[in-house]
This record gives sequence, C-alpha cells and structure tokens, in this order.
Amino acid sequence: MNLKSKNHHLGCSNSYNVPRYLFGFGSFAQLDEMLKLVPNENSKKMRVVYCIDHFFKGHERIKQLPIEPADIVLFIDTTDEPKTDQIDSLVKPLREFSSEIKAIVGMGGGATLDTTKAISNLLTNPGNASDYQGWDLVKNPGIYKIGIPTLSGTGSESSKTCVMTNKNTGVKLGMNSPYSVFDQLILDPDLTKTVPREQYFYTAMDTYVHCVESLAGRHRNAIGDAFSHQALLLCQSVFSQKDIQGDQARADLMVASYLGGCAIANSFVGLVHPLSAGLSVVFGMHHCVANCVVMNVMQEFYPRETDQFHRYLDQQNISLPTGVARGLEPSLFEALYQSSIVHEKPLKNALGEDFKKILTLEKVSRIYELM
Amino acid sequence: MNLKSKNHHLGCSNSYNVPRYLFGFGSFAQLDEMLKLVPNENSKKMRVVYCIDHFFKGHERIKQLPIEPADIVLFIDTTDEPKTDQIDSLVKPLREFSSEIKAIVGMGGGATLDTTKAISNLLTNPGNASDYQGWDLVKNPGIYKIGIPTLSGTGSESSKTCVMTNKNTGVKLGMNSPYSVFDQLILDPDLTKTVPREQYFYTAMDTYVHCVESLAGRHRNAIGDAFSHQALLLCQSVFSQKDIQGDQARADLMVASYLGGCAIANSFVGLVHPLSAGLSVVFGMHHCVANCVVMNVMQEFYPRETDQFHRYLDQQNISLPTGVARGLEPSLFEALYQSSIVHEKPLKNALGEDFKKILTLEKVSRIYELM
Repeated sequence: MNLKSKNHHLGCSNSYNVPRYLFGFGSFAQLDEMLKLVPNENSKKMRVVYCIDHFFKGHERIKQLPIEPADIVLFIDTTDEPKTDQIDSLVKPLREFSSEIKAIVGMGGGATLDTTKAISNLLTNPGNASDYQGWDLVKNPGIYKIGIPTLSGTGSESSKTCVMTNKNTGVKLGMNSPYSVFDQLILDPDLTKTVPREQYFYTAMDTYVHCVESLAGRHRNAIGDAFSHQALLLCQSVFSQKDIQGDQARADLMVASYLGGCAIANSFVGLVHPLSAGLSVVFGMHHCVANCVVMNVMQEFYPRETDQFHRYLDQQNISLPTGVARGLEPSLFEALYQSSIVHEKPLKNALGEDFKKILTLEKVSRIYELM
Repeated sequence: MNLKSKNHHLGCSNSYNVPRYLFGFGSFAQLDEMLKLVPNENSKKMRVVYCIDHFFKGHERIKQLPIEPADIVLFIDTTDEPKTDQIDSLVKPLREFSSEIKAIVGMGGGATLDTTKAISNLLTNPGNASDYQGWDLVKNPGIYKIGIPTLSGTGSESSKTCVMTNKNTGVKLGMNSPYSVFDQLILDPDLTKTVPREQYFYTAMDTYVHCVESLAGRHRNAIGDAFSHQALLLCQSVFSQKDIQGDQARADLMVASYLGGCAIANSFVGLVHPLSAGLSVVFGMHHCVANCVVMNVMQEFYPRETDQFHRYLDQQNISLPTGVARGLEPSLFEALYQSSIVHEKPLKNALGEDFKKILTLEKVSRIYELM
C-alpha cells in the first residue's frame, strides 16, 4: 500500500466532523449532561426521542437512560438493514410532535444510528425518506441528534450519510448531507463488552475493509490517508490480540470505527463495498457479514490485505458463510452484477474510468462463485 | 512508549471538533465558497473581518482573497506572541461594527489564528481578553470564524484554546472554551511552501513535542493516543525525508498539526511545554523555538524521543539557540522556575501529584543550564 497521494489535485470539498464527542469508559452515564447542552430557545421543546436497537428491549441499560415522562422511546427493529418505508412509518407519528422535540438519541449499531439520522432529518424536512437518497438533498438542519454506538465498525457515528434501501426501486443509497452528521457522540467502550463475538468481528471488519479500500484507491488525500492508516493500525493491533473484547481492544476498536468514518469523509470505498451491496440487495445479507464474505476472495485486488484478513479469521476462529453464490441461475448472477456495477464512484476509485472493461458480467460472476 | 491507556477511568469530558474543513492543494481559492456557507439570518451582517499575519502585507496572496469594500482587513503583528492588551486594542474599533460582521477569517500561523479566535469571542462577549483567560468563561458563541493556517505545527487550527499573555500579571493562559473552536478550516498545503526552513522546522516540532508529551503522560485515553500516534508517524515520515517542504511532506505536516490539535483535546502536554513557557515569559522567546530548546535537553525524561529529535536536527541541519540560561543571576532562575512550575496540569500529567518534589528550584535550574 503506497501511502502517498497519487492524485491530490482533484479539487476539494468540505468534510464534516461531529462537533462534540464524549469518549471514555462509563461516559454513557453522562447522557443527562449532554442533553443539557442541547440549544433550546423554545420551551415547547421538551421531548427527547430515543431510537434504540430492539436488542435492548428490557435490557438493564434502558433503566440507566434519563428518560422523562414526555419522552418517546422507539425500539428499532434491526433484523434487516434500514428500509425507506420503515423509516417513513417511524417518522409519521412523530411529525405531530416535531415542534416539541428538542433532541433525538440513537443507541445501537450502524442500522440504528442511520435510522436515527434519517428520522432527525425527516422531522424538519417534508416528504419521504426516499426523496432524500442522494447528495445534498436535505434542505433544513435536522433535529439535534446524539449518537451512542453500541457496536464498533460501521463509522456511521462519524459519517455524513445514513444508508437506506428502497424496496420498491431496489436503490440502496444514503442521505449524504452535512445534516446527517450527529451533533454529539457518546463513545463508551463499556457498551460493546457484551456484543456476540462473531458480530463484533464482522462489524469491526467494516472499518478494516473500507480503510483498505480507501488507501488502495485513486481518490485520496493526506488527511483521508492519515485517518485510514491509524484506523487500520488499531484494527491490526486489536485483531492480533487473543482477547479482542478486552478493555483496551474495545476502546481501540471504537476509536478505529470513529476514525474510519472520518476517513470516508475524505475518500471513497473500493471494490468490496459494491460487491457486498450485491449480496445485500439480492440475498438480504447484512452489510458487515457481506463485506467479510467479499473480502475473503479479494486476493486478486487486495492481495496483502486479503492474506491478513485470512489470518484474522484463523486466529480468531471466525467462520464465514461459504458458497453463497454457487450454482445460481444466470438471472441471479445478472442481478448481483447489476446491483454491484451501479456503484460507479467506488469502482472508478478502485479500478479507474474503465472499470466496466475489467468488471464484466463474466468476471463478476466468477468472483461471486468464489465466495 | 506504551500506547495502552494507563488510566482511563478519570471521568470524561466533551471534546470539540472543527465542524467543517476543506483540505487540499489550492483549496485557498475556495474561501469565497466557504463564506457563502456562513449562516446569515441578518442582512445587516455584510462585513467580513480578515486577520492576516503581517508577513502577508503586500503579498500576492492578499490579492487572491475575496475582499469586498465593506470588509475590514487587519494585519496582525506577530513579532511577539499574542498579548491580551494587543487583542483588546484590535477589538475596540471593531465593536462598533459587531452587529454587521458575519464572519472573521484568520490567516497565518498559531499567533494569528489564536488572535482571530480571541477577537471572535470578544465581539460577542463584553470586557477584555484577560477576563476570559481560563476554562469555560466565554458565555456567548463568538462570530463565525474561518481558519487558514499558513504554518503547520501549533494545532491552533483544531484546538479549543487561544493562548495569550497578560503583560501586567505575567499570566500566559488561553481562552479555553468550546467557542474558541473554528467553525471552518481551509487546509491548503500550498500555503506553507514558502515558509523559511528553520521556522518551518521549529513550528512542526510543536506537534512532535506535544504528541510525545501526551503519549508519555498519565492522563490518556484511546482516542487521544490514536491522534497523537498518527501525528507522530506523520512527523517521523516528514523529518526522515530530505525535502521536508515537498508537496507530500507539506500535506502530511498540515495533517499532523491538525491531528495534534485533536490529540490535545483529549490529553495534556507534559514537561516540555511548562519549561518552554518559562523561556517565553522570562526571555520573550517564541513558543516553537522555546519548545525545541527544551526538547533538546530532555534525555532524562523522554530519552528515545530526545534522541530522535537530535537526529532530526542533524539530518535537517537545523541549529538552535544555545546557552540561553547559562550564568544567569539567581533571581532569573527563580523567575524561570516560577513561570514553569505554575503549570500544574501538564506537570502532574508528566510526573504525578508529587511533581514539585522532583522539580525543585535546584533541579529546574540545572535543566535550564543545560539548554
């Protein structure tokens, strides 16, 4: 991997940071304080909406939240990845209260955080979630949003997008907007202590994969490289350890995820994410598992990093779904191909303008058959 | 250097990011676009105040600024480090326009950026600069501020402080406040191309030094460590090169400086900065040179990093002031001691609660004599 910028004269666009973050073991208990920092010119705004991963239903963590009688608690079903119509139906009943909501708190993994961001934007912008899939379509700042990740890896906590799938059109695309950035994060590594081990690994690998893709890409700059590089160093440190869920490892991985999100603000992903999107769209496979399934067969494109990934699988004794696309009918290969090749920006980043000459239907089908 | 957090249960406090940054070669030309992003509910606010390092007086860069007739251009005398009374006298004539000012643009090194932040805060808060030296004393958000660093190293661009010296009291202390964070940065490595080589080196070493201090300190967390670690890696990459002012080196150093500022948001400096403050207060020595003079004699406290620093001096053929405190009268050693030992937070971070037992007048005098 050459860390020098290959092309730094592509023109510049603004990158967005989460303006405030509280990092540390036990910081979860300080949500109350963080809510006091919400600007509130309007005494009518007395409600907080909590969007919480359904995993936490009945969990002791819920009792630790500073929930007031006027607040609204939603448990987000993250069985599948966020869908635009799911978000619309969450938003609909909230709209009658939107002038009373001072903040929205998202607590969960990437799916919950993305759902939280989308709801926040839709409470101050009319229409449906699918109206805002794309770049810079959100006109008004969303409701003040606080993100509390309980899984590390997606980078949703520090990114300016929230990825959603429109079941009708099959489009999987985020609300890419400065308004999709959280106003405040609480990064508490205690929250990832009890994540099931395989899920912890798969999600962590989202950071690993998108940093590998960024650093191997054509669209790069020194700041994106620095974020990716440090996130990778942290992943490498964590996954070379025996106990990947020890205190230091969880803290480091939470930082890696945050930095990975910052890296993406300055770069693009590469070949893995588009192929992974194919698996998600066609088979409904979860994003982070799908990434791992793809990364597993990337020898030709990211040889050193694929070897490293194999070592992590071995060392950590993690198994992956295999044979996911063997013996498929041609129409399914065509579907996988179409839902990958549509991601032009990352594919150009990985392979250049002529990426379609390399990634023919035949070639893409053969890659999927390896999985 | 052990990168593991030694003590991560110290309690958590919010860290603040610059919410927007534009990074890249030539991004300076996009200031116009960035000014269009300034929220402006009030059509009376039509003026931009430019605070520009006096080095740029008559420079061609000034012609490239999108200065309008109503704008106010101030050239900041950075011969000495920022003084509270200097800032007060810059603020005074601006106050009659304060309702008309939509943004303040700071362009220069750390001294100019710090001055810009202080002016921004004083245009929306009454009183004098010295009233706000300390922690969280600024009550109202300052005027929207855009930072354009033309030197890399201090981290002022990404920090929440602006350091000023009160000549009357001798206090050198910043306005530490979330409101001292820039709203937008333009990070253009083209701007550091013509910096004189020694100044470029000294200022860069500010990042090196404060990251070394942070990573060796007691007050640490995983995110501060990650920022420091990456900033150090970039410094090490730059200063091992022959041409420390090549395109890639300048880009990397600008990133290192930015990350160094982020690191400081999550940690403290150590022994070098307090001793360096002594040199600044007693002899008026500039902050970055003073840091280097101190770092040069830190074998006892930071042995590996001091060796590395010596190698950089040799490789880059940089000379330092020497003998700065030899043969002084006892009263001057006492003054150096007093103006160092007052910095309790970093000294505790470096040496523990009992730092005064280690840093006696005798010991501190001997360290200064080595310089």
